Amino acid sequence: MDSYLIQVNGHGDHAPVLDVHLKTNGNSISLGKVKGRKPRWAVRASEMSKKTFNPVRAIVDSMKVEPNPKKAMISLSLGDPTVFGNLPTNDEVTLAVKEVLDSGRYNGYAPAVGYQSCREAVAAYYSCPEAPLEAQDVILTSAIELALAVLANPGQNILVPRPGFSLYKTLALSMGIEVKLYNLLPEKAWEIDLKHLESLVDEKTACLIVNNPSNPCGSVFSKSHLQKILAAASRQCVPILADEIYGDMVFADCKYEPIATLSTNVPILSCGGLAKRWLVPGWRMGWILIHDRRDIFGNEIRDGLVRLSQRILGPCTIVQGALERILHRTPPEFYHNTLSILKSNADLCYTALSAIPGLQPVRPAGAMYLMVEIEMEHFPEFENDVEFTERLISEQSVFCLPATCFEYPNFFRVVITVPEEMILEACSRIQEFCEMHYQGAEGTQDLECDK
Amino acid sequence: MDSYLIQVNGHGDHAPVLDVHLKTNGNSISLGKVKGRKPRWAVRASEMSKKTFNPVRAIVDSMKVEPNPKKAMISLSLGDPTVFGNLPTNDEVTLAVKEVLDSGRYNGYAPAVGYQSCREAVAAYYSCPEAPLEAQDVILTSAIELALAVLANPGQNILVPRPGFSLYKTLALSMGIEVKLYNLLPEKAWEIDLKHLESLVDEKTACLIVNNPSNPCGSVFSKSHLQKILAAASRQCVPILADEIYGDMVFADCKYEPIATLSTNVPILSCGGLAKRWLVPGWRMGWILIHDRRDIFGNEIRDGLVRLSQRILGPCTIVQGALERILHRTPPEFYHNTLSILKSNADLCYTALSAIPGLQPVRPAGAMYLMVEIEMEHFPEFENDVEFTERLISEQSVFCLPATCFEYPNFFRVVITVPEEMILEACSRIQEFCEMHYQGAEGTQDLECDK
Ligand SMILES: Cc1ncc(COP(=O)(O)O)c(C=O)c1O
Ligand SMILES: Cc1ncc(COP(=O)(O)O)c(C=O)c1O
Repeated sequence: MDSYLIQVNGHGDHAPVLDVHLKTNGNSISLGKVKGRKPRWAVRASEMSKKTFNPVRAIVDSMKVEPNPKKAMISLSLGDPTVFGNLPTNDEVTLAVKEVLDSGRYNGYAPAVGYQSCREAVAAYYSCPEAPLEAQDVILTSAIELALAVLANPGQNILVPRPGFSLYKTLALSMGIEVKLYNLLPEKAWEIDLKHLESLVDEKTACLIVNNPSNPCGSVFSKSHLQKILAAASRQCVPILADEIYGDMVFADCKYEPIATLSTNVPILSCGGLAKRWLVPGWRMGWILIHDRRDIFGNEIRDGLVRLSQRILGPCTIVQGALERILHRTPPEFYHNTLSILKSNADLCYTALSAIPGLQPVRPAGAMYLMVEIEMEHFPEFENDVEFTERLISEQSVFCLPATCFEYPNFFRVVITVPEEMILEACSRIQEFCEMHYQGAEGTQDLECDK
Repeated sequence: MDSYLIQVNGHGDHAPVLDVHLKTNGNSISLGKVKGRKPRWAVRASEMSKKTFNPVRAIVDSMKVEPNPKKAMISLSLGDPTVFGNLPTNDEVTLAVKEVLDSGRYNGYAPAVGYQSCREAVAAYYSCPEAPLEAQDVILTSAIELALAVLANPGQNILVPRPGFSLYKTLALSMGIEVKLYNLLPEKAWEIDLKHLESLVDEKTACLIVNNPSNPCGSVFSKSHLQKILAAASRQCVPILADEIYGDMVFADCKYEPIATLSTNVPILSCGGLAKRWLVPGWRMGWILIHDRRDIFGNEIRDGLVRLSQRILGPCTIVQGALERILHRTPPEFYHNTLSILKSNADLCYTALSAIPGLQPVRPAGAMYLMVEIEMEHFPEFENDVEFTERLISEQSVFCLPATCFEYPNFFRVVITVPEEMILEACSRIQEFCEMHYQGAEGTQDLECDK
């Protein structure tokens, strides 16, 4: 149906003017101004708000299914390690904030980029000979948002991993930045398909997002792979936005290398924060580390970051005030303990899911996730990963995110921060579910013949 | 001098392509693509970062003056009530956060718009029969930024008070939104010049910002003036962004009316937070209250706010978790005590400055500021308010912001949250300064003849 909208506005002291628009199937035609009519209300939400779109919300909200009332719900869907209480933060972390509260010295405005002393503390913590950092190289902020905002203009594009964290696309599209997805290769432990990556670069490419360790894959890039990524970025002259929020969260048999430690010339904005490693995502304490040894970003990008940080001001001052103590006094056992729980859960989950017909988990090496391929040909009942995970809820009350949320159909993502018993119970329900719906080679062929 | 820039980028798998730009006095001419050349680095900061401009910083940074080494510096420039330690927040406020830390229940991600229970607490606290609020009418967020982002598109304009808080312009220009300044009238206790205001409205006007109580004026609008503002907004069909961060911070002889309580039809986004009344600006706890009884914003603006809040996520969860207790348990004496200190400082300052030749302070009724007119004709040595305040630093080590920072030349702003002794000392130094530089009517005429 066509709709006709008459939008009218006044012109102050002058005679009010009528601006007539006819809207026909979304096309708006202005008929120009007509004098002598009164203004009318027509408050519209901004284009930016309309372009801000969270695919996870859209997909999850469309999955209108009820869990099986006979089974307690188990949710393996949220990348929030605090949900079940089995992974509390360390006492030093909360004590540090309490000390700050008692001091009464951290209630006022901090500089927009963060307190100088906190920037120094972060710089000292992450500085190393291959990639030295000083206070001026650290911005305390909502990191990915600010890094994208300084590097890219509307109309430019950014290179984003597939599968990958959905926030990159949400932010980019809201800013009018195009997203080009480069492939990760599950058969190569989710390494980047570098040929594909390079084929996507054009003169409008503003940056390459490298997420290591990865959400949703739980993968960790080797030193040599990181070097190849840097070589590609260097060949193409594309700066890197390194999302290293899961930095250092890798299992014992594997080593995490911050990409900046391997870069000789590629300028890098590395995004990190307290969220994951210190298990306090709600505290909203993030940072950007500026690595630019060849002075390619130069003052322009640094100034830009400082300017942009003035729009909102930095993180909560009581968390900032606690930062130095949090970085220095959190006992090493805390990190080890978190990782050994994650490793043990990853192994349990991988082993259990490997034994299930029709599923192919990919073994993780860090972060808090594991991806599972659904051999869709063995589940002809289900159209795709969304339907598969929907039915897993309604039959088994187990909720995993369909990897369509990460632009990667026919997989689902499992969060491994949940308590061991729940992982085991969830895996056994997934097994029951798959055994129920699995169709062997013959079954599949029969079904295909029916079509 | 002309500069020639050669910007080159590769095209992935294809042969690299050379894109030649000649930059001549800022004009860039593309000569098209030339095959066979290698990419080169050319990382530029985004347009948005370049458009993000804080006039206060620019003006203050340009004031390169040293204070008088013989006098201790007194700064009356920062709108941060915590600087001197004389106005600590209440113990209940910090206890509330400590309780939250001990509970361990507020470390995870909150919903992007804030915890439901906190939204309920804010709604209950500010709800009243004339302007009822429910949880869904509250968004916990960086309020002014989000309210502007949902209401205005690039190319539209907003109406901003002159004198007024500089953040409005900083945010608007960074988003490509035009700013139209409407006048406040010092002789009418800084009421809005409504005729001027209405003359500025055009078909691109996205909203009217009303800041009450006011920074930098310390003024508080009467009920009848607020009704006239609403009538104008209603005539022009322009929604209101009410910056009410100083809400309830008015002296005893005066009453604060939230503008939404007087609106019959004008839709209002009211911006508030813990920053000023609870004396914790660094905690970054702000909120938007959506008042839309005629359903003019409708779902579109509400959805837009929810979507936009997903870009950054809400305020720090430990502050959110404490919010209900902060609102309910902060003793009334705390608010009264703050206000009686502010009122006493305002009176002292007003009385002292009134007695100084060449200065005309305007009596404040709330907030934390006071504006002082400089009768420039009596200070012929100084070009403007910036020079006047510069010399006040170099001679008397007293720092007040020149009101050019608020688009209002020939005034300066005094912050009245500093300890009484400092206000008195500052006022006596300002007196010495003015007596030194004041030129009576004759002197002025002489000087003008000299020109
Ligand atoms: C890859 C990745 N980057 C960034 C984030 C967001 O982190 P923050 O909580 O600091 O916004 C997440 C959260 O899940 C993530 O998985
Ligand atoms: C009028 C006005 N609005 C808003 C703000 C900013 O408040 P917030 O600390 O919540 O960003 C200030 C701070 O000085 C202000 O004066």
